[in-house]
Amino acid sequence: MDRDEASRLLGQVADGTLTPAQALDRFATAPYDALAHSFVDTHRGLRTGDPEVVLAEGKTTQQVMDNVTALSQQGRVLVTRCSPEQSLALGASGRTVLIGEPPEPRGLVAVIAAGTSDGPVAEEAAITAHAFGVNVERVDDVGVAGLHRLVAARPLLDRADVVICVAGMEGALPSVLGGLVGTPLIAVPTSIGYGASFGGLAALLAMLNSCAPGVAVVNIDNGFGAGVFAARAARVAHP
Amino acid sequence: MDRDEASRLLGQVADGTLTPAQALDRFATAPYDALAHSFVDTHRGLRTGDPEVVLAEGKTTQQVMDNVTALSQQGRVLVTRCSPEQSLALGASGRTVLIGEPPEPRGLVAVIAAGTSDGPVAEEAAITAHAFGVNVERVDDVGVAGLHRLVAARPLLDRADVVICVAGMEGALPSVLGGLVGTPLIAVPTSIGYGASFGGLAALLAMLNSCAPGVAVVNIDNGFGAGVFAARAARVAHP
Amino acid sequence: MDRDEASRLLGQVADGTLTPAQALDRFATAPYDALAHSFVDTHRGLRTGDPEVVLAEGKTTQQVMDNVTALSQQGRVLVTRCSPEQSLALGASGRTVLIGEPPEPRGLVAVIAAGTSDGPVAEEAAITAHAFGVNVERVDDVGVAGLHRLVAARPLLDRADVVICVAGMEGALPSVLGGLVGTPLIAVPTSIGYGASFGGLAALLAMLNSCAPGVAVVNIDNGFGAGVFAARAARVAHP
Amino acid sequence: MDRDEASRLLGQVADGTLTPAQALDRFATAPYDALAHSFVDTHRGLRTGDPEVVLAEGKTTQQVMDNVTALSQQGRVLVTRCSPEQSLALGASGRTVLIGEPPEPRGLVAVIAAGTSDGPVAEEAAITAHAFGVNVERVDDVGVAGLHRLVAARPLLDRADVVICVAGMEGALPSVLGGLVGTPLIAVPTSIGYGASFGGLAALLAMLNSCAPGVAVVNIDNGFGAGVFAARAARVAHP
Amino acid sequence: MDRDEASRLLGQVADGTLTPAQALDRFATAPYDALAHSFVDTHRGLRTGDPEVVLAEGKTTQQVMDNVTALSQQGRVLVTRCSPEQSLALGASGRTVLIGEPPEPRGLVAVIAAGTSDGPVAEEAAITAHAFGVNVERVDDVGVAGLHRLVAARPLLDRADVVICVAGMEGALPSVLGGLVGTPLIAVPTSIGYGASFGGLAALLAMLNSCAPGVAVVNIDNGFGAGVFAARAARVAHP
Amino acid sequence: MDRDEASRLLGQVADGTLTPAQALDRFATAPYDALAHSFVDTHRGLRTGDPEVVLAEGKTTQQVMDNVTALSQQGRVLVTRCSPEQSLALGASGRTVLIGEPPEPRGLVAVIAAGTSDGPVAEEAAITAHAFGVNVERVDDVGVAGLHRLVAARPLLDRADVVICVAGMEGALPSVLGGLVGTPLIAVPTSIGYGASFGGLAALLAMLNSCAPGVAVVNIDNGFGAGVFAARAARVAHP
Amino acid sequence: MDRDEASRLLGQVADGTLTPAQALDRFATAPYDALAHSFVDTHRGLRTGDPEVVLAEGKTTQQVMDNVTALSQQGRVLVTRCSPEQSLALGASGRTVLIGEPPEPRGLVAVIAAGTSDGPVAEEAAITAHAFGVNVERVDDVGVAGLHRLVAARPLLDRADVVICVAGMEGALPSVLGGLVGTPLIAVPTSIGYGASFGGLAALLAMLNSCAPGVAVVNIDNGFGAGVFAARAARVAHP
Amino acid sequence: MDRDEASRLLGQVADGTLTPAQALDRFATAPYDALAHSFVDTHRGLRTGDPEVVLAEGKTTQQVMDNVTALSQQGRVLVTRCSPEQSLALGASGRTVLIGEPPEPRGLVAVIAAGTSDGPVAEEAAITAHAFGVNVERVDDVGVAGLHRLVAARPLLDRADVVICVAGMEGALPSVLGGLVGTPLIAVPTSIGYGASFGGLAALLAMLNSCAPGVAVVNIDNGFGAGVFAARAARVAHP
Repeated sequence: MDRDEASRLLGQVADGTLTPAQALDRFATAPYDALAHSFVDTHRGLRTGDPEVVLAEGKTTQQVMDNVTALSQQGRVLVTRCSPEQSLALGASGRTVLIGEPPEPRGLVAVIAAGTSDGPVAEEAAITAHAFGVNVERVDDVGVAGLHRLVAARPLLDRADVVICVAGMEGALPSVLGGLVGTPLIAVPTSIGYGASFGGLAALLAMLNSCAPGVAVVNIDNGFGAGVFAARAARVAHP
Repeated sequence: MDRDEASRLLGQVADGTLTPAQALDRFATAPYDALAHSFVDTHRGLRTGDPEVVLAEGKTTQQVMDNVTALSQQGRVLVTRCSPEQSLALGASGRTVLIGEPPEPRGLVAVIAAGTSDGPVAEEAAITAHAFGVNVERVDDVGVAGLHRLVAARPLLDRADVVICVAGMEGALPSVLGGLVGTPLIAVPTSIGYGASFGGLAALLAMLNSCAPGVAVVNIDNGFGAGVFAARAARVAHP
Repeated sequence: MDRDEASRLLGQVADGTLTPAQALDRFATAPYDALAHSFVDTHRGLRTGDPEVVLAEGKTTQQVMDNVTALSQQGRVLVTRCSPEQSLALGASGRTVLIGEPPEPRGLVAVIAAGTSDGPVAEEAAITAHAFGVNVERVDDVGVAGLHRLVAARPLLDRADVVICVAGMEGALPSVLGGLVGTPLIAVPTSIGYGASFGGLAALLAMLNSCAPGVAVVNIDNGFGAGVFAARAARVAHP
Repeated sequence: MDRDEASRLLGQVADGTLTPAQALDRFATAPYDALAHSFVDTHRGLRTGDPEVVLAEGKTTQQVMDNVTALSQQGRVLVTRCSPEQSLALGASGRTVLIGEPPEPRGLVAVIAAGTSDGPVAEEAAITAHAFGVNVERVDDVGVAGLHRLVAARPLLDRADVVICVAGMEGALPSVLGGLVGTPLIAVPTSIGYGASFGGLAALLAMLNSCAPGVAVVNIDNGFGAGVFAARAARVAHP
Repeated sequence: MDRDEASRLLGQVADGTLTPAQALDRFATAPYDALAHSFVDTHRGLRTGDPEVVLAEGKTTQQVMDNVTALSQQGRVLVTRCSPEQSLALGASGRTVLIGEPPEPRGLVAVIAAGTSDGPVAEEAAITAHAFGVNVERVDDVGVAGLHRLVAARPLLDRADVVICVAGMEGALPSVLGGLVGTPLIAVPTSIGYGASFGGLAALLAMLNSCAPGVAVVNIDNGFGAGVFAARAARVAHP
Repeated sequence: MDRDEASRLLGQVADGTLTPAQALDRFATAPYDALAHSFVDTHRGLRTGDPEVVLAEGKTTQQVMDNVTALSQQGRVLVTRCSPEQSLALGASGRTVLIGEPPEPRGLVAVIAAGTSDGPVAEEAAITAHAFGVNVERVDDVGVAGLHRLVAARPLLDRADVVICVAGMEGALPSVLGGLVGTPLIAVPTSIGYGASFGGLAALLAMLNSCAPGVAVVNIDNGFGAGVFAARAARVAHP
Repeated sequence: MDRDEASRLLGQVADGTLTPAQALDRFATAPYDALAHSFVDTHRGLRTGDPEVVLAEGKTTQQVMDNVTALSQQGRVLVTRCSPEQSLALGASGRTVLIGEPPEPRGLVAVIAAGTSDGPVAEEAAITAHAFGVNVERVDDVGVAGLHRLVAARPLLDRADVVICVAGMEGALPSVLGGLVGTPLIAVPTSIGYGASFGGLAALLAMLNSCAPGVAVVNIDNGFGAGVFAARAARVAHP
Repeated sequence: MDRDEASRLLGQVADGTLTPAQALDRFATAPYDALAHSFVDTHRGLRTGDPEVVLAEGKTTQQVMDNVTALSQQGRVLVTRCSPEQSLALGASGRTVLIGEPPEPRGLVAVIAAGTSDGPVAEEAAITAHAFGVNVERVDDVGVAGLHRLVAARPLLDRADVVICVAGMEGALPSVLGGLVGTPLIAVPTSIGYGASFGGLAALLAMLNSCAPGVAVVNIDNGFGAGVFAARAARVAHP
C-alpha cells in the first residue's frame, strides 16, 4: 500500500463505496510499515540538506560510482574512506570526498589532532562536519606530551560550539582538553600506534575512561561519525 | 491517535465532514508509530499462547511479583533466573518458573546436557520450550569423553524435531552430535569450567567454530533463548 | 571387519563351523567402531540428497579440483569460499559454487542482509540453503537505521519457515527482526566494519546478547552454516 | 607566586624599584604553572553554577561526608554511585544525590532506557543533567525488540536538544533511535546482561559500531558522563 | 540390545531359527552404539585400577556424597576441588581427597612448584598422580628469580620420568626447567597473581610460548589434569 | 675460567703453590656460571643425538643457511617453518627440513590430524618426532563430526606410546580421543578456521578445557613442540 | 656439596690424599648448582640492607606471621598487601608494613598520585621505596583533567632522581608528566575505574602507549615493584 | 602574547603609560599558556643535547625527509622505525638512524637480547640510548632455556647502571636476570613468536607479572622508549 492507494481508499469512503469499518479493516490488514509509509513523509533528510553518504571501503570502484550517480540526483553526496583509485574516479583527491556544494554553514566545530599521523582521520571529521553544514577549524599536532602546543588551540576551543579531539597511542589528549574547556567534546581514537595499542584499543579505552566529564567517544578512526555528531550538535545551537 | 480516533476520522470522511485530502493530512501529521498502532492489532503474542516472560535476575523480589501480577491477567507467565527467594515468593521451586498451564504441546524438542553441572541451564531450556508449547525430553550427563553414553540418547535424537545441546568446558558435544544427526541443533554453552574457560567463552567459541554444519549457538547459559528458538522451530513443523 | 566379513561369520554360525560363543568373541575383539560399521548403513547423507561440501579456503586450486572430482561421482558437490581462481577452475563465478543440480526444494528460507557489503555472506547462505533443498528468497540492504526499508521484507518474513539475518557492524538487525516475527531466526554476524568491530566480534556479541528470544547465532561470516541449519529446519516442516 | 605577588612586582616596576628586564627575569624563574595561575582566574566552574562532583564508589562513608562538607561551602555538590549507607548518611536515597538546588534549567535532554534493569544508570544520567542545569524527561523500558514501545518516546525525541539512550545486552536501541532522529544522541552501554555480555562489553562494542551516524558513546554504566555531556550540549543551544 | 540379546540372536542363527541375513538385518537396525556395546568390554578403566573421579566444585555436599557412595562400590574414588565442608563430609582434609587405597605405584613423577601460594595446585597434581598409580616427589618454592633454589630440585629432575612444574605470575619456571632437563615437562599455570595476571592468563600464555621445547601445558589451576597425564606417561615407561 | 684453568688451580694446590683457602678464594671470585661450567659437562644434548634446531621464520634465507652451516658440523640439524625459498636453499621441500640422518628410532608416536588443512602442522610434528629419534605413524582427516573415520586410527592409538592430536576450528578431537584411549595425548591447536576462531584461540581454549583428563596442550600451530615432547616421552618408555 | 666440603676436598688435594684429576672428577659429579653454591657467596641481598619481602595476599595470617618471624632474624622485613587482620597481627596499620628500621636513605623518589582512590597503591610504592633506602616525597590527587594541580608538584619533579606516577581510569597522567620532565618516570596503573576500565587494563595500555618517551610501566596496582625499581635507580645515582 | 610583548607591557608600566592594575588585566586576558610561554624558556631539550625524534612509521619518505630537514637545523635527529627506502633516503641503513653526532656519553647501559630475532628491537634500544648520551654494550642471544649463555653477560650486568632486556615468546628472561642483579632493569617485550604469543602480548604480560622486583616494562617492540628511559636513568647517576 502506498500514499496513492491510501488516498483512493479514503475516496471510496467519501463516496460511500466503502464503510468506515471496511476501510479500517483494509488498513489493518496492510503490512505494518507499508501502512505507516503510505501516510508519512520520510524525506526529512533531503530537506535538511544533509548529504547522502557512501562508504567506499569494501566496495569496488564501480559500485562506488554507481552509488554516487544514483544518489547525486537527489543532492550532495559524501563519499568516505576512498582508496586513491576510487578518489581519482570521483575526480577528487583524499580519502573523503564531497560531491556537490555543502549547505550554508551554521555554528563552529573545532577539530584538534594529537599527531601528524592522525591527520587523515581529522580530515574525515572536518570534511564531514563541513558537508553537514557547519564551519570547521582545525589544529594539528597538539600532543599531550608537549602541552605548550595547546597554546594555539586555546582561543579556538573557547569559540567552538563542539570540539572534536582526534588521538591515537595512549589517547590522553581528550582528558587534558576536557579539563580545560566546558564545551562538549567528541573523542576519536585512531589506530595510530603499535604493539599494545592493539589497533587503537588502548586509545579507545583511555577515552572511555576519561576522568574529565563531558567526553563522548566514537569508533576507532571514525572521523565521519564524529563529524556528523558535532555538526548536529552545533546546528542545534544555531537554528 | 488510537484506533477509536482513526475510526472517527473515517466516519467524518464518510459523512462528508472531512474530504479525503483533509483526512490524509490529519493522518500524515500523527506520529509515525502511533498512526500504525491505530490500525494494527499487535496482540499476536497472546493469540499464539506464548507466555509473557519476566527475567528475575537483577530485579527485587517485589519487582518480580509486580511484573508477574500485571502480566498474569493476560495469561501464562514464565519467570527465568529466579533466586531461591524469588522462586519461593512465586510459590514454586527451581530457577525457572511457569505461572499457569502451558499450551497444548506440538512437536518434540530433545534437551541433551553434557554434565551434571550443566543441569540448571538444561532445565531452563526444557521448561521454556514446554511453556512455549512443545513436548520435551531430556538426557543428562552425555559427555564427549564417554561417547558410549550417547547410546541412550540416540533414538531420541532421531525422533526429535530440534535438538538442544547444553555443554560447558570445551563445548565439544554439539560437534559430535552434529556429526551423528541431520536434525537442527541448538548449542548452549554454559559457564561451567574454570581457568581458561573464561566464564564459558571457551565453550562458546568452540560451538561457533563447530566443524559440524547445522549447529547454531545462543548466549552462554541462555537456556531460555534456546528453548524459545527450539519451540518455534518445532511448532513450524507441526502447524 | 566389514559387512562382508560379518556376514561370513554369521554364515559360519549357521552351518555350525562356529559356536555362538566363538562368534561373540570374534566380534568382541574387533575394533569398536569397525564392528559397528560392519552392521550399520551410514550413507544416510547421500540418500537425503545433501551435497558433499568442500571448503576451498586454505586449499590449493589443485586440491580443490581433486576433492571435487572425487566427490562428484557420488552426486552434487558444494564448494565454499572459493578464490576467483578456484571458482574459474570450477567453471563458475562467485565464492560459493554448486556442482550438479540441487534437490527438489521443500519449504522456504528468507535471507535478509543489512548492508550491501554483507552480500557475499548472504549469497553463501542462500546458495547453501538452495543446495540443501529449500526455496530461498533474499532481501538486501535492510539497515536497522532505516527501519522503513523493512517494508519490502515484512510479507516475506511472515511466509518463511526460517529467517536468516546477515549483518555486520553493530549487528542489531536480528534483534529488530526478532521483535517483529515469531519465526525461528538465524543470525549471521559478518566481519564488515572497522576499528572496534574487531573483525566481526562486535556483531557476534550483539547477536548473542539479543533481547529478542528465538535468535540463534553462527560463526562470523558463516553463511554456509546458517544455510545448512535453515535448510534442515525448513525441511523438517515439509517432510 | 600568586596574584598578589604578581601585583606587587608590577607595582615595583611602576615605581621604578624594578626595571622591566628585572621583572621579566623574576617572572621567568617562577614555576611554569604558578606563573600562569598568578594571572588567570580559573574559577569558571563555580561561576557557571556547575556542581562539584564526588564519586562515592571506593570511598568510605566518612570520606564521602568529608568531601561533601568541604565542597558544599562553595555551592551545590553532586554525589554519584552512593551505596545505600552513603546515601543515607547524606540524608537522601538513590545512588545519585544532589546536595543543594540545581541551577535554573535551560534546554531539554531526553533520557531513554531500554529495559527496567537499566533504570539506575538512566537515573544517574537524568539527575546529573538536572544538576548541571537542563530540563530532563525520561522514558523507560523502550526495548528494541518491541519497536511499538517507541511510540510514547517519539514526540519527546523530536523536542529534545540532546537524547541520551541507555541500553544493556546487545545495545541496539541507539542504532534504531539514531535512524529515527537527527538529534545528537549519547549512547550509554550498561552492564546489564550475562554470559557473552562480558560486563557490558557487547553493548559498548555495538554502540561504537552503530551504523547510524551521530551516535557518540560513554563508558559502561557511565550515566554521569552522559549527563554532563548532554547538559553542556543542551546549554550551548540555549545560551 | 545388550550382550545377552546379541548372544541369543547368535544362538538363533546357530539353531536355524534365524538366517544369517536376518541376523544381519536385526543387528543393522539396532542403534549404532548399543550395537557396539553389546560386543565390546569397555571396563578397561576399572581393570587398570584408575580411580573414578568426582569434581566437587559446583556440586552440593550431598551431591558429592551421593556420587562418592555410588562410585566407591566399584573401587577407589578421587574427589577434586572440595570445599572445606565437602572435605569434612568425606572424613578428610585438603581440597583433593582419595577414597580408598591407591594402586601399586610404578615410575616417578616430580612436582615442582614456583611459590608457596601455588601449593594447593601442586598438591592436587601430586595426590592425583599418586591416585593414578605412580610415585610422587615434591619440591616447593623454586622461584625463577632465585635460581639457586633449583639446587635441591636438580637430582630429582634427573631421576623423574615426568616433571610437573606449577607456577603463577609470569610462569617462567617451566622455560628455565625445560632448558635444564630432557625429561617431558607438564606446565601448570596457576591463577596466583594480580592485575595483568588476568586470573592466570599471563602464566598460561608464557607457558604456551616457552622457548624450551618439550613443554606441554594444561588449564589454569588444573593440577588434576597434569597429574593424570604425568601418571599415564610414567606408567608407559614402567609397564 | 674454564676446565683447563680449574685443573691448573688444583695442580697448584697439589704442589703447594696455592693454599686451599687461596684456591677457594679464587674460585669464589669467578663468575657464578663460568665456575660451574668449568666443572660440568653440559654437552648431554649432543650425546643424546638430538638435533640442533633452527627456527627459519623471521630470519633471512642467508641467516638460516649460516645457522645450518655452523650447526651441521656438530651433527644433524632440524629447520622449522621454512619458506619455500628457504626450503629450496636447503635442497629440500616442505616447511620442516631435517639435515642429516635421524637417530635410531625407539618407541612409537601417533600423529592424528582432524582435517586436510591441519596437514602442515601434523607434518611438522611428525618430522620433528622422527628427527628426535622415534617411529612415527600418521592418520589424517579424522574429523570429530564423522566419528566413523576414527576406525582406521583405533588400532594405532592402542599401539602408540604417545598420541599427538592436531586440530583447528573447535578443537574437539582431543576430547573425543582422550575419552577412547589411556595413552598420554598431546593436543596441538591450529590456526585453521575463521571468524570467531580468532587465529586458533577457539581450538586452544577448547583443548585446555578438555573434559578428558590426560590431555596436555602446546602453542597454536606448534607441531615442533608437540614432536619434541612426544619423542621424549616415547623414549623414556624405551630406554 | 657445600662450602665446607669444597674446602675439605681442596685440603685433600693439598696433602696429596687426592690428585687434581680426582678432585676435578668429584667436582664434576656434584650437581651443577650445588657446586656453584659451594663457592659463591649469595648473601649480597642482606649486605645491601634490602629488606626481605613477604606478600601477604593469598596467605593466612598465621603463614604471614611465620614468614615474618623466620625472616626478621636476618634483618628488616617488608610485608605487602596485608589485610586489616594481618596488619593488626603485625602490630601495625595499613596494607604495607615495614618491620624494623629502613636503611639510611640516599637519593629522592617522588610519588605522584592522580586521584584519592589511587592512595593505597601510592602508599605501597612510597613505603617500599623508603624500606629500600631512599627518601620519598608524595603529592596526591594531581588529576590530568585539572592541570593546575600540577603546580605544587613541579618543583618536586625537578628535584627527584626518579618519579613514580600512580593513576587509574584513563592513565593519562604519566604522559603529561613525561612531557614536563626529563627524569626517569615509572608509571603504575591502578585498578581504579569501572566498566571499560577492565580492572586497570585501560590505564595499563595507555601507559604502555605513552607518547612521552622515558616512561616505563609496572603491573596494575604494583606499587611495590615501582618502589623497588625507583629505589634502585635512585641509589645508583647516590652510591 | 610572546616574550617581546610581555617586555613591552612591562616597559609601559615602567614609564607610567600603564598602571599595574591595567597590566594585570592585560596579562589576565591573555590565553593561559601563551602567557606562561611569554615568560618561560622551554628550550631545555635542546640544551641537554637530546636529539629531536622522528617516528618514520606511518609517514611517507617525503614527510620523513621534510621533518628531518626542519629539525636537523636545531641539532641531531634520531629517526626510528625507518623502512629500507626511508633509511636509504637518509643515506643510512638499519631501522634506526641518527643524523648528527651523539652527545658525549656518560654512564653505561647494557642491552641484553634473548634471541637472534629480537635483534632489531635491541638495536633500536642501543642506538637510542647512544643518541641520548650514554655508553652502550650489547649481548645477544641469551636465551632463558640455555642459562649457561648468561655467562658472558654476567660481568656486564654488574658494571651497567641500567639493564635493558629484550625478549619475545614467553618473555621470561627479565625474571631470570632480575633475580641475578640489583640493577634497575627495563624489560622490552617483542612481537617475536606466533600463535598464542598474540603479537607480543604473552611476553608483555609475563614481564608485567615478573616475580623479580625492580623490573619495569615498555610497549611491545618499543626499543626506543627503553633506550630513552635507560639513558635518562644512567645520566642521573653520572651528572
